[in-house]
Amino acid sequence: MSNERPALAELGLGAGKQARLHRILFDHGAGNGTAMFLPYDQGLEHGPRDFFANPAASSPRYVIDLALEGGFNGVVLQIGLAEKFYWEYAGEIPLVLKLNGKTEIPSDASALSPLNATVEEAVRLGADAVGYTLYVGTPAQEADFEQYRKVRADAARLGMPLIVWAYPRGSAIEAKGGKDSFYAVDYAARTASELGADVVKLNFPHPEKNLEVPGAYTGDFTSQQAIDAVVRSANRSLVLISGGSKAGDDAMLEKARESMEAGATGLIFGRNVWQREHDESLRFASALRTILEKHPSQSRAR
Amino acid sequence: MSNERPALAELGLGAGKQARLHRILFDHGAGNGTAMFLPYDQGLEHGPRDFFANPAASSPRYVIDLALEGGFNGVVLQIGLAEKFYWEYAGEIPLVLKLNGKTEIPSDASALSPLNATVEEAVRLGADAVGYTLYVGTPAQEADFEQYRKVRADAARLGMPLIVWAYPRGSAIEAKGGKDSFYAVDYAARTASELGADVVKLNFPHPEKNLEVPGAYTGDFTSQQAIDAVVRSANRSLVLISGGSKAGDDAMLEKARESMEAGATGLIFGRNVWQREHDESLRFASALRTILEKHPSQSRAR
Amino acid sequence: MSNERPALAELGLGAGKQARLHRILFDHGAGNGTAMFLPYDQGLEHGPRDFFANPAASSPRYVIDLALEGGFNGVVLQIGLAEKFYWEYAGEIPLVLKLNGKTEIPSDASALSPLNATVEEAVRLGADAVGYTLYVGTPAQEADFEQYRKVRADAARLGMPLIVWAYPRGSAIEAKGGKDSFYAVDYAARTASELGADVVKLNFPHPEKNLEVPGAYTGDFTSQQAIDAVVRSANRSLVLISGGSKAGDDAMLEKARESMEAGATGLIFGRNVWQREHDESLRFASALRTILEKHPSQSRAR
Amino acid sequence: MSNERPALAELGLGAGKQARLHRILFDHGAGNGTAMFLPYDQGLEHGPRDFFANPAASSPRYVIDLALEGGFNGVVLQIGLAEKFYWEYAGEIPLVLKLNGKTEIPSDASALSPLNATVEEAVRLGADAVGYTLYVGTPAQEADFEQYRKVRADAARLGMPLIVWAYPRGSAIEAKGGKDSFYAVDYAARTASELGADVVKLNFPHPEKNLEVPGAYTGDFTSQQAIDAVVRSANRSLVLISGGSKAGDDAMLEKARESMEAGATGLIFGRNVWQREHDESLRFASALRTILEKHPSQSRAR
Amino acid sequence: MSNERPALAELGLGAGKQARLHRILFDHGAGNGTAMFLPYDQGLEHGPRDFFANPAASSPRYVIDLALEGGFNGVVLQIGLAEKFYWEYAGEIPLVLKLNGKTEIPSDASALSPLNATVEEAVRLGADAVGYTLYVGTPAQEADFEQYRKVRADAARLGMPLIVWAYPRGSAIEAKGGKDSFYAVDYAARTASELGADVVKLNFPHPEKNLEVPGAYTGDFTSQQAIDAVVRSANRSLVLISGGSKAGDDAMLEKARESMEAGATGLIFGRNVWQREHDESLRFASALRTILEKHPSQSRAR
Repeated sequence: MSNERPALAELGLGAGKQARLHRILFDHGAGNGTAMFLPYDQGLEHGPRDFFANPAASSPRYVIDLALEGGFNGVVLQIGLAEKFYWEYAGEIPLVLKLNGKTEIPSDASALSPLNATVEEAVRLGADAVGYTLYVGTPAQEADFEQYRKVRADAARLGMPLIVWAYPRGSAIEAKGGKDSFYAVDYAARTASELGADVVKLNFPHPEKNLEVPGAYTGDFTSQQAIDAVVRSANRSLVLISGGSKAGDDAMLEKARESMEAGATGLIFGRNVWQREHDESLRFASALRTILEKHPSQSRAR
Repeated sequence: MSNERPALAELGLGAGKQARLHRILFDHGAGNGTAMFLPYDQGLEHGPRDFFANPAASSPRYVIDLALEGGFNGVVLQIGLAEKFYWEYAGEIPLVLKLNGKTEIPSDASALSPLNATVEEAVRLGADAVGYTLYVGTPAQEADFEQYRKVRADAARLGMPLIVWAYPRGSAIEAKGGKDSFYAVDYAARTASELGADVVKLNFPHPEKNLEVPGAYTGDFTSQQAIDAVVRSANRSLVLISGGSKAGDDAMLEKARESMEAGATGLIFGRNVWQREHDESLRFASALRTILEKHPSQSRAR
Repeated sequence: MSNERPALAELGLGAGKQARLHRILFDHGAGNGTAMFLPYDQGLEHGPRDFFANPAASSPRYVIDLALEGGFNGVVLQIGLAEKFYWEYAGEIPLVLKLNGKTEIPSDASALSPLNATVEEAVRLGADAVGYTLYVGTPAQEADFEQYRKVRADAARLGMPLIVWAYPRGSAIEAKGGKDSFYAVDYAARTASELGADVVKLNFPHPEKNLEVPGAYTGDFTSQQAIDAVVRSANRSLVLISGGSKAGDDAMLEKARESMEAGATGLIFGRNVWQREHDESLRFASALRTILEKHPSQSRAR
Repeated sequence: MSNERPALAELGLGAGKQARLHRILFDHGAGNGTAMFLPYDQGLEHGPRDFFANPAASSPRYVIDLALEGGFNGVVLQIGLAEKFYWEYAGEIPLVLKLNGKTEIPSDASALSPLNATVEEAVRLGADAVGYTLYVGTPAQEADFEQYRKVRADAARLGMPLIVWAYPRGSAIEAKGGKDSFYAVDYAARTASELGADVVKLNFPHPEKNLEVPGAYTGDFTSQQAIDAVVRSANRSLVLISGGSKAGDDAMLEKARESMEAGATGLIFGRNVWQREHDESLRFASALRTILEKHPSQSRAR
Repeated sequence: MSNERPALAELGLGAGKQARLHRILFDHGAGNGTAMFLPYDQGLEHGPRDFFANPAASSPRYVIDLALEGGFNGVVLQIGLAEKFYWEYAGEIPLVLKLNGKTEIPSDASALSPLNATVEEAVRLGADAVGYTLYVGTPAQEADFEQYRKVRADAARLGMPLIVWAYPRGSAIEAKGGKDSFYAVDYAARTASELGADVVKLNFPHPEKNLEVPGAYTGDFTSQQAIDAVVRSANRSLVLISGGSKAGDDAMLEKARESMEAGATGLIFGRNVWQREHDESLRFASALRTILEKHPSQSRAR
């Protein structure tokens, strides 16, 4: 069962969040209410090793230019790159300021992504959304929720759309089937929605990874059934599906199609885009946009 | 002598102000770096008498629709109308939130326009600029500058472009040649610039009104010479020329042409637009846009 | 009697004020502990009429370039011009941010110069000093002292040198011999010193204007005697002598010589410099610097 | 592949950061956009044992005098020495106030460098930059990033350049190849850049230390290739290469040459300078400056 | 090598710290720039067991009277005794308010001395200095430095001299040669100096305790060489040598002589004084003062 895609005006957002999401969804990319984001915080999350496949991608200018040429709806940056590079592109492409982030060096067993910037700084930079990584299920859940709550309240006060990277993570979820299971992703979707995400970024669920997951998730689900359920769990939090590490094109495009079919609003593919050679990146971005063009939604209420 | 029109990136603005101005100047209206705003705060400033010429204009929806249909770069509202009406149009047309305003009922001898909303409220509403009326030369200058300073600092902190309605007003300027003289308008332009306006809204100067003005302004200036000087006095504060009360079309369009020739960035015409019948309003707006199309400027530095 | 010129290290300043004054006094201009500032806030204080004598001077870039070419120790700007123009010259020439200022349109009878910027903004802009106009003797003295006190405390907290424009002004001093008398200027010097100015900007005293002044000032003083006394009244507040409105060169240079002879630290000449044609401005600046070169002072304690 | 060295004006810094960096980079040392800093916080970090090689270096006055004589671009001090000693040299040589620091006595397994001073104190002292040690990859990452974020925000608010000592440290990086590997240093460079360092201080990378590092870093890299990549990872954060503990002169100078060739902005050598006898220190500083003189960069945008 | 003893005015202190230290150093005790303090916080640090040797010393009045009779330069109290007893002696003898302190009951492995009073309370009580125990090298270093930083900033803001009890303590220093080694005391002296102590209280170093200390400290040092180095490490932080637990008189007086010879400013002997019978205490105090009289220093700069 695929899900209804609500109009932007029907999400209970205030004018500011709506204005900013309208710009992202209708003034850029396919311009039809869908979105395709280019995330570029892997230099922090994984380190520069992610740039070895295409050294040009080490340059923020190269990547922002790619987002412009490739018709993306926005680019995702940490505060440092946003301050040093976005001024040259201010207003040309929406900025999503990622507010937290960490290196992969210490253990992820009690993962928590510390805050590196504030919603007010995002406003000052002219960003159209902020991003926050919530490590769903982490043993550090209390500190994570506490930190998140303040970000959510600031985003509400300043009319700034809040995109939650809802990532199952930590020793506890590893003991319950791992971070990619249908169970884990579905739970992450719902958690973000329950806690007030305007948009939620999710990994594609793997219903076949069902060892040690709760009984309800041990059934024989197709990936379409799984993604349908996940988007339903997110309800009025718009869903973005993450590309993750670089994979085969056909598999990626099929995941993208199933996600949009399920009612997702869009895609957020980074390494799958900029770890290729320049023109190859644009060809792949174009293939993604072709999919988005088939799934328009409305801005105003019907 | 006409003035050079600087690129948006060369004005010393931070990324946020630049992003918001870029949206106004390049994503709406003529899209060439010029702007045509539809101001709609006369219901407070003059009272509903301004709507008697075209009663339909009493409706904020009518006027915002007009701004959309007429291809304006933004609509200017006080907080009440912004809260009640902008959510239906959020993101479709830029909002300029006018932060201060007053009725015309008490005397203007010591004019001061009190604050009715904050920059933070403008951010929350998704506005792309804020407006502030500075009554240049008012005997209440100390209170006005003090109030303005806080607005300017908030606008800087939140990356919000600040449009200053620089209006000579009060008993002192009346005793020195009146509020429309070349002297008064030129001084107002410079005052806004010295005090940090990103954009300054000015009335067209009248060099022929030169009784009681300082000696330098008693010469025989053409209106083109006067507007050239005024735009020069504003230097890196972008200039918008105000329409003022409704006047003959040819005179208005000639003022518009001379202003753009002088290096102004655009026009802010309200009553001259919406005090007409609907289609007539659109025809006039179209004539204005035709002028703007001839005066493009750049976004990025050259 | 001429006065001893103290070393910078002997003024009881903290490290920050000392570091910033050292840069102004020893890294720019004559580099010998003297200073020659180019003030450029007349566009606000008097309006653009001051630029009619040399229209090029309406451009802040022209004037800052002049300060660089003319070997000035700093340029004085209001917040608006500082934000829009100083970034292009950041670090090349010291910035003095003038914190208060007003138009000349309303009456000066109870003069008060409202605050347009803060010491913290001066720090953020990289300024090396701040300026504050104290209208000595104004009937609005209470509000003026109160406003000044906060600026002084902020300047102390942030190690920012505070230059006080100590200007006798208002109806009361007009009734006691006028703002230019030896009495008025001497009292202004002492007031700034008593209230904590690090540097005080003064007009040259006119001992011959001695009608209605207190008895002590009715004697037959030479201008050298008067300026000697004024500098002595300022004691450890370094003295800058103001040029005022444009006057004959010989008279101006003679005033400059007498001031330096009296122990002043330097000069702050604006209209006398930039109301001339470009090369003529540089020639005059060079004549001023020749005088300064004869009056070195030390940085370190003896 | 060596990297382009951007002009100071092209880094997206505000006026204050630019003014202060301009002073450091163009008014001191080689004066050509490069920098050579003399760090002097080892008395805290390692204890007085570092002074046994040259007991004179125990005296802050000796070391600051050495920085002046040796033509360094700045001296790095903790708050205590800055307060007790910098006033004698205020303005003569730029001060970098190191804001955090710790003794080496407790274990470094979960290293965190506590804050000993604030950005506001640096402003009050007249410092031209602040320093912060970020222990990249430490298990105490959350507390470190949190503490750093506030310093970064204060530095932005006050226009103070932020130099990040980006040091891989702690048990996790020890388990992944150690703190000096190409992987560790490259990741540290990128982390500082993603988190908004204006300048990043790095140790020279050791590509040959490639046991247990991620696959991408196990290749056969020359030291030039490694330092090239590291400077590229830092993109618009200017790079300073650290001297570390005293080593052979030829090796040190070769590292310096390779660093500058790779696009670094300068060097920060402490023990290699002041652990020598006085004249020998000056000879070594002179050799470093000769290298810097060959790698000029611009201040204004091209 | 003995060290130069700087004049009070050459330490970079502000007027308030200087005025209060001047009272302590020149209006009390030997009155020649030296100091001899009577510390009396052992009732908290060790408990009343310290009073069993001389039960009269259990009474704060007895001890303060002893300080007066013995010609001490000040008495050191915790907040409780200060509030209940100092009012009777206010102004007769300088008060040093010890701001932190703890019982010896819990383990010292991760020692941290909690704050029991504030600098503002010290001002309110009329104290002439405050004391803070910094446990150098404690595993709780981060919390200790953080707590200390606020005390230091308050002391700066209020012009209150800050005496740091710089005590190596905790499991880490125990594993590196123990808290009394030359290495530990030397590092503690330097740490206090780097972190802004105005005065540092140190134990006499034991160069013979050199097992497990860093290589530089394993040499064959006399106690005079060690104390010379320690005072040098403290540079412009005035040094007070602590008596520690009661020991033989000749040994104590020899330590005192060597300390003053090394450039220390004075002594802080508690149990060695008041654990004796009354007249014996006075005789010992007199012997100490005789030593201090031979080591005068200046107040004003030379």
